[in-house]
Amino acid sequence: MTKPYIHKVKYYETDKMGVTHHSNYLRFMEEARVNYLDEIGYGYRRMEEEGLVSPVVSVNIDYKKATTFDDEISIDVKVESVSAVKLIIGYTMTCNGEIVCNATSVHCFVDKNSRPISLKRTRPELFELLSSSAIKN
Amino acid sequence: MTKPYIHKVKYYETDKMGVTHHSNYLRFMEEARVNYLDEIGYGYRRMEEEGLVSPVVSVNIDYKKATTFDDEISIDVKVESVSAVKLIIGYTMTCNGEIVCNATSVHCFVDKNSRPISLKRTRPELFELLSSSAIKN
Amino acid sequence: MTKPYIHKVKYYETDKMGVTHHSNYLRFMEEARVNYLDEIGYGYRRMEEEGLVSPVVSVNIDYKKATTFDDEISIDVKVESVSAVKLIIGYTMTCNGEIVCNATSVHCFVDKNSRPISLKRTRPELFELLSSSAIKN
Amino acid sequence: MTKPYIHKVKYYETDKMGVTHHSNYLRFMEEARVNYLDEIGYGYRRMEEEGLVSPVVSVNIDYKKATTFDDEISIDVKVESVSAVKLIIGYTMTCNGEIVCNATSVHCFVDKNSRPISLKRTRPELFELLSSSAIKN
Repeated sequence: MTKPYIHKVKYYETDKMGVTHHSNYLRFMEEARVNYLDEIGYGYRRMEEEGLVSPVVSVNIDYKKATTFDDEISIDVKVESVSAVKLIIGYTMTCNGEIVCNATSVHCFVDKNSRPISLKRTRPELFELLSSSAIKN
Repeated sequence: MTKPYIHKVKYYETDKMGVTHHSNYLRFMEEARVNYLDEIGYGYRRMEEEGLVSPVVSVNIDYKKATTFDDEISIDVKVESVSAVKLIIGYTMTCNGEIVCNATSVHCFVDKNSRPISLKRTRPELFELLSSSAIKN
Repeated sequence: MTKPYIHKVKYYETDKMGVTHHSNYLRFMEEARVNYLDEIGYGYRRMEEEGLVSPVVSVNIDYKKATTFDDEISIDVKVESVSAVKLIIGYTMTCNGEIVCNATSVHCFVDKNSRPISLKRTRPELFELLSSSAIKN
Repeated sequence: MTKPYIHKVKYYETDKMGVTHHSNYLRFMEEARVNYLDEIGYGYRRMEEEGLVSPVVSVNIDYKKATTFDDEISIDVKVESVSAVKLIIGYTMTCNGEIVCNATSVHCFVDKNSRPISLKRTRPELFELLSSSAIKN
């Protein structure tokens, strides 16, 4: 079980409604995902150095409650499912004990030339790490 | 029928993969929506001056193809549906004749104190404009 | 003489003070610079394809007046000076006829391996274009 | 003496040159300044609640060395000078022991209606905190 990632809302992330602009949550998802991969021991940097790219195929975001400057958003990341060709990650964001946002991102795996690859065959170690994370959920 | 909104990708919107960072499409959606409301004659500025707020409740984004610096993304906005309490907007983004992104955003209507209001009752003019746009699709 | 570049302020560029966040002006400068190079006939894309990189060495920004959502900022770009190794660009931003921001950016020229190069010797055409722009100011 | 503020570079802060986009350093300055005020015991939130606004009047940024995704930038904040009407803050950013960026921001003090106010007279406590910080430098 990894510990939640904390994002403290920056002033420049607010908008004239006085709240965190909704587009930033998609960036918080990336931050939390990067941190998650570091936590399970296979960081983005290593993935990139090894020529593995995992583009975002789709995202779904449900905004539950506004946050604002200086708020600490706690982001819980979960591997929803992983197959040879697709990874689904779920995000639960809370602030002061209340859910503020639920989200999902879907990823595929490609090589440096954008050709689809099988994660299971080309990166069995990462595939195992993600699979065992998925089971724990 | 409104004409598509054009967003030319800025250098600062790219990332180290060499493509437009996926979070920016959520911003392009907002730009195109703002432009759409201007086109149908009831802009954001007027909405804000009248105390009408239309927060984003949820978004769904499907990334089809990468774009990069200097690309011109053409964004077609459609009112999928509108009711007294909910507005669904669809976005089709193309670049060089190919679809690069499909997306949907769902909005509700609240007053300045974040209390839900009926668009149909409180802003019949805007409700009519959106409804007639929805029918044309 | 190139015509000014227009940036219409986006909702996501505002902050909770209700104005355009000051960091965005640095992005507007880049947008206007990119547009300027397009206008004089030697765009960023071509520069990049030819392996020419022109990093920002320093910037100076004076904020004169706040702007906000939907404002049209008109940005006038001028080559202040250009030498074999350094380019200085000046920006005057106005909105509704008033100056809102004055800025300067200093650039050097490097190749793909970040080694300094002489613009005059390696890209005489671009050097001439920038020099003749500087004289006109 | 406050401890340096750490900003770990996010993936979305890089650009297609593969480095941290230069505009983000202006955001890191804000983050570090906000953190600094928290550290000396008079945070932004309190300032805002009390109706004190401290707009950025000008900035100067010298880029020394590129950084990239996952780099930890350590930002040292110093009050260069403070008077009744003007605050000058200096920033030294290092990464892996090397200076990557030096910067300065100049601020004034206004009330909620954007009228200039004397910090010394209206907020003597904050004026004293900033003055004693300046002396220590």
